[in-house]
Amino acid sequence: MDTRARLLDAAGQLFYTEGVHVGVAALCRAAGVSKRSMYQLFVSKDEVLAASLSRSVPAYLASLLPPTEPSLPPRERILQVFQRLETMASAPGFGGCPYVSAAIELKSPRHPARAVAREFHDTLTAFFRTAAAEGGAADPERLGRQLTLVHDGVTARAVVQAAGPDGLALATASALLDHAKIR
Amino acid sequence: MDTRARLLDAAGQLFYTEGVHVGVAALCRAAGVSKRSMYQLFVSKDEVLAASLSRSVPAYLASLLPPTEPSLPPRERILQVFQRLETMASAPGFGGCPYVSAAIELKSPRHPARAVAREFHDTLTAFFRTAAAEGGAADPERLGRQLTLVHDGVTARAVVQAAGPDGLALATASALLDHAKIR
Repeated sequence: MDTRARLLDAAGQLFYTEGVHVGVAALCRAAGVSKRSMYQLFVSKDEVLAASLSRSVPAYLASLLPPTEPSLPPRERILQVFQRLETMASAPGFGGCPYVSAAIELKSPRHPARAVAREFHDTLTAFFRTAAAEGGAADPERLGRQLTLVHDGVTARAVVQAAGPDGLALATASALLDHAKIR
Repeated sequence: MDTRARLLDAAGQLFYTEGVHVGVAALCRAAGVSKRSMYQLFVSKDEVLAASLSRSVPAYLASLLPPTEPSLPPRERILQVFQRLETMASAPGFGGCPYVSAAIELKSPRHPARAVAREFHDTLTAFFRTAAAEGGAADPERLGRQLTLVHDGVTARAVVQAAGPDGLALATASALLDHAKIR
């Protein structure tokens, strides 16, 4: 793995477990990278944080979203996300959705990592919206946002309660799908 | 206002706008309190944080929960919370629910402020559960948790999107109440 990748992977891990306020010294130590090398690659720690979050999005989405199988009914495709979320949010060391948590921790709306969190959010909403439209939702955009809101609530709740969703993610998503009459 | 109250109010404000990692020096400066006075009142910054969150809970709950009016139907009593949440989460400078945000920022589940976040959560769930039971819910405990989950999702979403709920809080709570046939 090259220096950039090693730095970003270590940064992603460290920011998630310790918080976005971890300093440059601790970051470089964890990555086994000199400060000089870090600053040759990135202009600031804020850029390292944004790049590390961005780098992890595809793998995170792949672990959350089922592959697009045309054979899978839209309702099942949506519920699979919440089934996976139940498992993910019950795992030891779960500290919330990395992107939502980073957005909450970074108080400035202009921090470059905030854009990554918004993009993640929008991608998740687009997945739900597409499935909701295929399932016959009267307002797929709204249902997509509601399901993303359930995702956010489930991950936040798991942190506050220090406990897994215990079926609440699936039950809440199911209720919204029933209400919108999604097949 | 005495020193303790002044310190806790300044701490609550500062931790909310800057994050829980604000140092003791900045905290004492903002409160106009010497470090010596702070350490005479609290053994650590962690205790200041927990006490400042705890001190703000009653006012925060009063702004979120309507007074218990027996004349108000349970459904309306619940929806009023989400109406208030719509307004609160649309205000400039909204940085999420202070207790959920603190729980997410504080990575250690043993931090004393984490217990305050859980208590806030449990109080909110109890409010919803009581109204849900009065409204005839088949499973008031589950509906109470679902509505708290919507609260958490709405506040997290407002931060990620840097925008108000735009009706999504009310629509999502209403859908869950419809689904549970709450009068």
